[in-house]
Amino acid sequence: MAKCPGWKRRYDPHMPFTNRDLESIRQDVAAFARDRDWDQFHSTRNLLLAVISEIGEAAEIVRWSGDREPAVPADKQQAWADELADVFILLVRLADRSGVDLTVAFADKLRRAGEKYPVEQFKGSNRKYDEG
Amino acid sequence: MAKCPGWKRRYDPHMPFTNRDLESIRQDVAAFARDRDWDQFHSTRNLLLAVISEIGEAAEIVRWSGDREPAVPADKQQAWADELADVFILLVRLADRSGVDLTVAFADKLRRAGEKYPVEQFKGSNRKYDEG
Amino acid sequence: MAKCPGWKRRYDPHMPFTNRDLESIRQDVAAFARDRDWDQFHSTRNLLLAVISEIGEAAEIVRWSGDREPAVPADKQQAWADELADVFILLVRLADRSGVDLTVAFADKLRRAGEKYPVEQFKGSNRKYDEG
Amino acid sequence: MAKCPGWKRRYDPHMPFTNRDLESIRQDVAAFARDRDWDQFHSTRNLLLAVISEIGEAAEIVRWSGDREPAVPADKQQAWADELADVFILLVRLADRSGVDLTVAFADKLRRAGEKYPVEQFKGSNRKYDEG
Repeated sequence: MAKCPGWKRRYDPHMPFTNRDLESIRQDVAAFARDRDWDQFHSTRNLLLAVISEIGEAAEIVRWSGDREPAVPADKQQAWADELADVFILLVRLADRSGVDLTVAFADKLRRAGEKYPVEQFKGSNRKYDEG
Repeated sequence: MAKCPGWKRRYDPHMPFTNRDLESIRQDVAAFARDRDWDQFHSTRNLLLAVISEIGEAAEIVRWSGDREPAVPADKQQAWADELADVFILLVRLADRSGVDLTVAFADKLRRAGEKYPVEQFKGSNRKYDEG
Repeated sequence: MAKCPGWKRRYDPHMPFTNRDLESIRQDVAAFARDRDWDQFHSTRNLLLAVISEIGEAAEIVRWSGDREPAVPADKQQAWADELADVFILLVRLADRSGVDLTVAFADKLRRAGEKYPVEQFKGSNRKYDEG
Repeated sequence: MAKCPGWKRRYDPHMPFTNRDLESIRQDVAAFARDRDWDQFHSTRNLLLAVISEIGEAAEIVRWSGDREPAVPADKQQAWADELADVFILLVRLADRSGVDLTVAFADKLRRAGEKYPVEQFKGSNRKYDEG
């Protein structure tokens, strides 16, 4: 695993997401579909392919970027935010339609990841990192 | 666009996600990486490829399912929830590291989608739906 | 794994691909890049993300199709062929640039798949099929 | 688009693919499925999801690599070749089952790409490259 030399840290603990409840997001997405009677199109695999389609659009934006950071060209930052939002919307919808409580699944997975990669053992190390 | 005849509706307005603030989720994911000194590996493209890898694992679960519902085999429901959680965790991390406020990007995109597909014009119709 | 009821068989042993040597395809793709001095952009991960981007465009075409066949809408057949060609071109380039002899890798993998799924044991059965 | 500084050229015009006819590859893949009576599972979207699943496994191998070359860790070269072979096998099968002559689609697409990016205009330049 290569470090990122010249990596210009964008991470800033003072740049949080705006507060918003995940369940209220699910409700908005569900209402959007219901209002248009689109539930009929939202099967598990239709939504999964839609997620993949949007991920592909995100990949298109950075496919020739190499490892420079920021990887997203300055004039594509809005498009990039849009693609991540599209992936998020469809992921929330996919979880909703396939019976997954995303909040619970998230907490459960992060907890198990913490047990799998104990801090003292993996700090600063990528050993077995990609075997997860 | 094909409707889903025989579609067994899983959608249930009484099965919400557990309440959880999206910013607190971002903080937990960021803390997980920081505690292990893994920020150095979390470049935009590393994370994007990680998202794609997890989406691929979700695709593996339903790739031979056809469009029956539920598409996820009964004995794979936990694995399915895990894959969606992995995609979610990495998507949150990707947004965080590439300077996207996912809450704002979400609301902004859903609003514009609403303007693009007015209810009265698209209700029950898929016209131009996939040209989005 | 669901069978495809009402599956309209498109497979026709009399509809072969036009004959063409895979190595001559690799040469054409390599010449295309070399003529434009684009080798400099064709790193492994740039090309992989490009493959994913094109796969995403293929997914977009059939994402709302459900399980009907043909899954590709009649007016999208040319676009579909184009996307598969894009994936193919980039896959050939990716193999070339990352030191993989695609002909050998193909034959080797198909042979091992044949050993893993013996005909007598897996004929008409999907048992363990998706554990591959 | 970033160049690849320190890019260790793997490309070697003397490292061709082994000669093999693309139609004979299609036939082998088709025979593999027919012998096991698996045509029934090979719908367009099943195969597309299978392609995506295998692409995801390739992404897993290089997801933490950054853009160093070779991106594929030395001990993963066989796995990498296997994943590219899997993508290739499933792509050939997908084209076959969805009525695409991959040889013709390839030649047609490369010809049009050549017209879109004339050598004299794009040599060494990435101008509009990613608008393709």
